[in-house]
Amino acid sequence: MSITLSSASLPVFRNALTHLHHLLEKARADATARGYDPQVLVAYRLAPDMLPFKSQVFIACDAAKLCAARLSGLEAPKFDDTENTLEELQARIQKTIDWIATVPASAVDGQEAREITFPVGKTASRTMLGEDYLKTWALPNMFFHITTAYAILRHNGVPLGKRDYLVGAGG
Amino acid sequence: MSITLSSASLPVFRNALTHLHHLLEKARADATARGYDPQVLVAYRLAPDMLPFKSQVFIACDAAKLCAARLSGLEAPKFDDTENTLEELQARIQKTIDWIATVPASAVDGQEAREITFPVGKTASRTMLGEDYLKTWALPNMFFHITTAYAILRHNGVPLGKRDYLVGAGG
Repeated sequence: MSITLSSASLPVFRNALTHLHHLLEKARADATARGYDPQVLVAYRLAPDMLPFKSQVFIACDAAKLCAARLSGLEAPKFDDTENTLEELQARIQKTIDWIATVPASAVDGQEAREITFPVGKTASRTMLGEDYLKTWALPNMFFHITTAYAILRHNGVPLGKRDYLVGAGG
Repeated sequence: MSITLSSASLPVFRNALTHLHHLLEKARADATARGYDPQVLVAYRLAPDMLPFKSQVFIACDAAKLCAARLSGLEAPKFDDTENTLEELQARIQKTIDWIATVPASAVDGQEAREITFPVGKTASRTMLGEDYLKTWALPNMFFHITTAYAILRHNGVPLGKRDYLVGAGG
């Protein structure tokens, strides 16, 4: 079985977002165990001009969702970034996982050389071939925001190890 | 042109490590501009029981190098983790990029279903198929440590934006 554009994208997104969901589960348990307000985590930033935890979750979800949509040509559900608790963020992640699970591999395969244009920031756009868009934009972007979410939790003492980020890998 | 195991790995490693090299360049410039000791960054941790910045660089390099080696069956050069300045860490990154550039695509392609056994931690090991090892272990691991390095720098005020992490993407 050779690697395909769908096998290099859809299960990788679902796998990584499942781990992100798990990180939030551990964050909720830690807030309960140590008796602090979990909203501190939701709003936490590693620098004053960095995005808060909840935005890291939004962008991780959207990096995966929008890549699946753009490669497949299917329209993704739009989420309005209104989630503001760990539970709501977990629901957002799950909705993203569930939608990606509906994208057929056949719609993604063969799109390696199709030009994909996507917005970058508020006013710019960028065009890449499908394979490059996956490899050098969507995947690094998703992992960036999942890892930043992990770093925020870890910095705040949530008991995480890299197994929590890679848990279930290869499953 | 369909995606292949080599196209999904070798250029992704080189691209991401090139960005990591760039992050350290900006860290050096920031230390000079603000007049602080760059060794503070080299040793910095986001939590007292997390690995320091330099180890994030070591592991990012090794995740890529060892995956290229294991998929291709080639022997990777061994590095002894003795680097202890930003310049030395940049040299380590460059040596890794340079070695990966010598791995022929033909040695990696077709290895999707080969079982690969690799050490996990000090005493355990794990076995995965080649494609799964790349997608659910090596790539997430490399991006994890590059992003953690980024987070450490950003937390310390190095003027970075996501463009620095994705710069040159699609190039």
